[in-house]
Amino acid sequence: MSNTKKTGGLAGVVAGESAICTVGTGHGLNYRGYDIYDLANNAIFEEVAYLLIFGELPTQKELSDYKKKLSNERDLSDTLKTILENIPKNAHPMDVMRTASSALGCIEPENEDFSNQNEILIKLLGKFSSMLLYWYHFHFHNEKINTSSEQDTIAGFFLEKLHNKPPKKEHIDCMNVSLILYAEHEFNASTFSARISASTLSDMYSNIISGICALRGPLHGGANEAAFRLVSLYKNADEARVGILDKLKNKDKIMGFGHRVYTTKDPRNVVIKKYAKELSTTKEFENFFQISEMIEKVMWDEKKIFPNLDFYSASSYHFMGIPTDFFTPLFIISRTAGWGAHIIEQRANNKLIRPSSTYIGVDNREFIPMEKRI
Amino acid sequence: MSNTKKTGGLAGVVAGESAICTVGTGHGLNYRGYDIYDLANNAIFEEVAYLLIFGELPTQKELSDYKKKLSNERDLSDTLKTILENIPKNAHPMDVMRTASSALGCIEPENEDFSNQNEILIKLLGKFSSMLLYWYHFHFHNEKINTSSEQDTIAGFFLEKLHNKPPKKEHIDCMNVSLILYAEHEFNASTFSARISASTLSDMYSNIISGICALRGPLHGGANEAAFRLVSLYKNADEARVGILDKLKNKDKIMGFGHRVYTTKDPRNVVIKKYAKELSTTKEFENFFQISEMIEKVMWDEKKIFPNLDFYSASSYHFMGIPTDFFTPLFIISRTAGWGAHIIEQRANNKLIRPSSTYIGVDNREFIPMEKRI
Repeated sequence: MSNTKKTGGLAGVVAGESAICTVGTGHGLNYRGYDIYDLANNAIFEEVAYLLIFGELPTQKELSDYKKKLSNERDLSDTLKTILENIPKNAHPMDVMRTASSALGCIEPENEDFSNQNEILIKLLGKFSSMLLYWYHFHFHNEKINTSSEQDTIAGFFLEKLHNKPPKKEHIDCMNVSLILYAEHEFNASTFSARISASTLSDMYSNIISGICALRGPLHGGANEAAFRLVSLYKNADEARVGILDKLKNKDKIMGFGHRVYTTKDPRNVVIKKYAKELSTTKEFENFFQISEMIEKVMWDEKKIFPNLDFYSASSYHFMGIPTDFFTPLFIISRTAGWGAHIIEQRANNKLIRPSSTYIGVDNREFIPMEKRI
Repeated sequence: MSNTKKTGGLAGVVAGESAICTVGTGHGLNYRGYDIYDLANNAIFEEVAYLLIFGELPTQKELSDYKKKLSNERDLSDTLKTILENIPKNAHPMDVMRTASSALGCIEPENEDFSNQNEILIKLLGKFSSMLLYWYHFHFHNEKINTSSEQDTIAGFFLEKLHNKPPKKEHIDCMNVSLILYAEHEFNASTFSARISASTLSDMYSNIISGICALRGPLHGGANEAAFRLVSLYKNADEARVGILDKLKNKDKIMGFGHRVYTTKDPRNVVIKKYAKELSTTKEFENFFQISEMIEKVMWDEKKIFPNLDFYSASSYHFMGIPTDFFTPLFIISRTAGWGAHIIEQRANNKLIRPSSTYIGVDNREFIPMEKRI
C-alpha cells in the first residue's frame, strides 16, 4: 500500500465486509439482496428501514408494529422543545438536526450495553421530522406545532407537518420512494464515518451524529441542495444549455452529476426522474423539469457524465414545496436506516477502524527555545 | 486488496498523506517534526496547538496574541447558557460537549468559504472549558459561573473554574503536559473520522463533532475513564496483582494498555507517569499510584503489554481532583488542536474519502409481496 496516490480518498480500497448493500460491481443496487427497483416500486420507507436494520422484509404484523412504534416517538419533551426554541432562526437546518439529535442523546441516552440500540434508532427516526419542523414553525411562523397526526408513515407525517395540511397521495408516494432510494449506499463517506465511531464502541447517537456531520458537506448529502440551486440559475432550457456549456469551459463543478462508484449511470436516477416528471404539473414546474433535462443532455453530450440521485431529487422536492435547506435533512431521515444497519453490523463483529498515513512533513527538527524564534 | 481479513479495521492501511505527526515507525512521536519530549518539557499547550495548526512554533508575540484570542472566547452567550441549563444533570459530559459544540455551530457558524476556519478553532478551544463547567456548576452546585479569570492558559483556566480557586502551579504544569501529549496522534479513529467529514466539505463544527463522536468510545478517548475505574477496583497493590491475574485468566480486556501502532512501549507513558508520581503526595494517592504500578508490572510480566498514555493520565487527573467523567472531555479540548490541523490539511488538498466493502450477504433475492411473507 505504498502507492498513496492510488489510494487517495480510499477510492477502490476495501475497508471491510458488509452484508447490507451492493452498489453495482456486477450486483446492481441491492439492499439486503433485494433489487432497488422492486423496493422502490412495491414498498414504503418503513418497510425498507426494517429490511435494512433487521435483514428481512417485515410481515404485515411486523410492519404495523414498527410503524406504530415510530409514530409513538413523534412527541417531543418540553426540554427538547426549549432547546429547539433557543436554536437561532438563521441556523442551518442540518445544524439544527445535528444539535437536536445530540440533545436527545443527552435526555434519553442509549444503554451502555447497547441493549436498546433498536429503540434508539426508532426514537431518532420517529422524532427527526418533529424536531426539524417544530424548530421551523416556531421561528418562521411563530407557531408551536403539535405532533399528533393521522398520517401513519414518516413520508406523510413530514409533508403534513411541513405544510400544515393533509398531503396529496402522489406526494406521499414520491416522498416514500425518495426516502427508499436515499436509505443506504454501502461504505459512502457518512456511513463509513458512522462505522468508525461505532468501532470505538461509542453510543448510537454519536454514531448517527457522525453520519450527519459528514452528510452535511456539498460533496455528499449537500449535493441535492446544490443541484437545485444550479437548476434555479436558469430561466429556460436554452439559457441552461448556454450556461452549462460555459461552466464546463470554466471547469466549474456541476453538482448532481457523476458518482465515485457508478461509471455509466446511477440506477436510482431513472426512478426519481419518473416521479419528478409526474409531479411537474404546473407551467413553472414543467419549465423547471425541462431545464433539468437540458442540463442532463448537455452533461451527457459533452462529458458523458450522468445525473445521480441528487439531481432529480432536487426537482421532486421542489415540486412538493419543500424548502431547499430541508433537502439534506430529509436525507438524514432516510439514511439513518442505513447508518443504523451498518452500526449494528459493525458492533456485532467489531474491530477498531484505525488506518495509518504516510508522513510527508519535515523530520527531526531541533526544538527552538522561545527566545531564539524569529 | 481482496484480502479483507488483513485490512480489518484498516490496520496498517495507508489512508493518505500527512505532514502533521509521526507515531513511531522509525521517527518516534513527533508533532510537525518536533520530538514529543522536547514539546512536553519546554512548551505549553497553546504553543503546541499553534504548532500543529500553523506548522511552526510561535514567536513570543504570536503566542501572546494566540493566548489572548483564546481567552477572549471564554464567554458564553445567553442562548448557549440557556441550552446548557436545559441539558439534564445526568447527561454524559461527552454528550454535553457534543451538544454544546453543535449549538455553538448554530449560533456562530463557519463561513461557507471556510475563510474563518482558524477563528472557529479558537472559538471552540476557548469555549470548551466554559461550556462544560458552566453546565457542571449549574446542575451540581446551583451556580451560574462567570468566565472571567486571571489564568492565561487553558490548563489554568480549566482547573480554576473547576475547583473555583487558583490552581497549584504543579497542577497547571501537569495539565499542560497532559494536553500536549493528547493533542495529536496521526490517523487515529477520531481524527480519521474528522477528515472524512472534512472531505465532504462539511463545516468545521461538524468535522470537530465527528471527532468528538468517535472519541467518546471506550476503545478510544473513553479509555482513560475506563483505566481509572480499573485501578479504583482495588484497595492495594497486592489485591490488584491477584485481581489482574484473574482478569487475564478470564480474558477480560484491561483498559489503558497496548496500542494499535506502538508495539513495545507508548513514548508518552514515561512523561505522564513522572507527573502522576510527583502529584501522588498523599497516602491515598501514593497507594493509588502503587496499585497502578502493580497493574503495569503484572501486564508486562504476563503479557508483555505496556501501559499507554491513558493509564497514568487517569491517575494524574484523579490527583488533580478531576471528576472521572471529565477525563474524555479534556481529551476533546486537547485533540481539537490535532483535529483542526488535519481538517485544514484535508481541505487544502481534498479528495472525498469513500472506500468500498466486500459484499458477504445474500445475493439476488426475489421480492416477496406482503401477503406472501411469513
